[in-house]
Amino acid sequence: MEQKLMTPEEKLQSLGLKLSPVRPVVGNYVSRVRVGNLIFTSGQGVDEYRGKIGTDFDVQEGYLAARQSMMNLLNVLKDELGELSRVKRVVKILGFVNCTENFTDQPKVMNGASDLLVEVFGEKGKHARSAVGMAQLPGGTSIEIEMIVEIEDPLT
Amino acid sequence: MEQKLMTPEEKLQSLGLKLSPVRPVVGNYVSRVRVGNLIFTSGQGVDEYRGKIGTDFDVQEGYLAARQSMMNLLNVLKDELGELSRVKRVVKILGFVNCTENFTDQPKVMNGASDLLVEVFGEKGKHARSAVGMAQLPGGTSIEIEMIVEIEDPLT
Amino acid sequence: MEQKLMTPEEKLQSLGLKLSPVRPVVGNYVSRVRVGNLIFTSGQGVDEYRGKIGTDFDVQEGYLAARQSMMNLLNVLKDELGELSRVKRVVKILGFVNCTENFTDQPKVMNGASDLLVEVFGEKGKHARSAVGMAQLPGGTSIEIEMIVEIEDPLT
Repeated sequence: MEQKLMTPEEKLQSLGLKLSPVRPVVGNYVSRVRVGNLIFTSGQGVDEYRGKIGTDFDVQEGYLAARQSMMNLLNVLKDELGELSRVKRVVKILGFVNCTENFTDQPKVMNGASDLLVEVFGEKGKHARSAVGMAQLPGGTSIEIEMIVEIEDPLT
Repeated sequence: MEQKLMTPEEKLQSLGLKLSPVRPVVGNYVSRVRVGNLIFTSGQGVDEYRGKIGTDFDVQEGYLAARQSMMNLLNVLKDELGELSRVKRVVKILGFVNCTENFTDQPKVMNGASDLLVEVFGEKGKHARSAVGMAQLPGGTSIEIEMIVEIEDPLT
Repeated sequence: MEQKLMTPEEKLQSLGLKLSPVRPVVGNYVSRVRVGNLIFTSGQGVDEYRGKIGTDFDVQEGYLAARQSMMNLLNVLKDELGELSRVKRVVKILGFVNCTENFTDQPKVMNGASDLLVEVFGEKGKHARSAVGMAQLPGGTSIEIEMIVEIEDPLT
């Protein structure tokens, strides 16, 4: 019952996780666009993990990188919505994993993002997902994730 | 006229193709999410083709892999909608082809998915599409495709 | 004030850029699908740049390739809408950069597309964006971009 009453922000706090300002966007684009009751985010890399999963980092480190990328996405949602409780459903995430040609555990890496979504939003956090392996990513980030979210009401 | 009266399921049967249960999802996500009159699917790989197009498989085998990936997506739609005739329009597919650095025939591979959509849905199956070449994919699958579909009515 | 009155087509003209017919689609798909007030495009490569950014082309050439890919996308929008002024907001672009395993400047390449959008549409051109590095792309194109656009009114 206690858990039911926790907001996503309280849930994050209970996990020892802190929301931060949105990472700066360098270029003629923005971190997200809202259209009706959907939010489309830009891809979010991570500053903490740069290099290829499979050589520079192992699966467990990749998991943590994906978790951090999702934190960066939650920062974007917080900035857009004010309150994360306005998320009605996480619709879709697409995870780009910077990896070697032989690395096939992209799903285990992306679980770092998926698990966090369900920890924070419960059933509403259950999303469609694709996980794929990339030749390289911006700034050498080990992961980049983009997200589509449905919100409760399309305030304008 | 006969063709006009065939349901997508009957069309599949006439092609000798059988719908199956949705492949199990391993992780904190789901095979699709419906938002309003849109369905966003997770990426669907194939179990039958693991390896790189260009070395392990040729273009024709890649075509068949893409066709199988689309069958897996149709299984997801069938599970969500009950009847495939509730598809109003296939909006978009994004095809990730697991290939060598020199392989540039991703479109010929993805035709395996596009052709099946039009065989089954006719004009409603004509979709926007991107086809790209990947360093590697989950479990070494030769292809992974995700899909956006518009449905007739947003039942809730 | 003069700038405010310019249509996107006039803006393109003032930049010395010319709209062209949509590049032919080879296969059972289409260059875009409209669903409600959204347009989802197919990925658009370029004919002028074939090869990898990082070896065959440098960042500045990649920027021009991305700008050309966006021109190809604007051709698609023009064909769909008649007037580009019917674009309400550019929602999202996803840029696939054909590059070497060591190339990490995908964002600088994609700025070629983002800058053009803002030059042509102003604030309405500010979009969410992902930029990623690919093993290879169709026909060896150096870049492929897909786009989601919101339009003013969903004419049917």
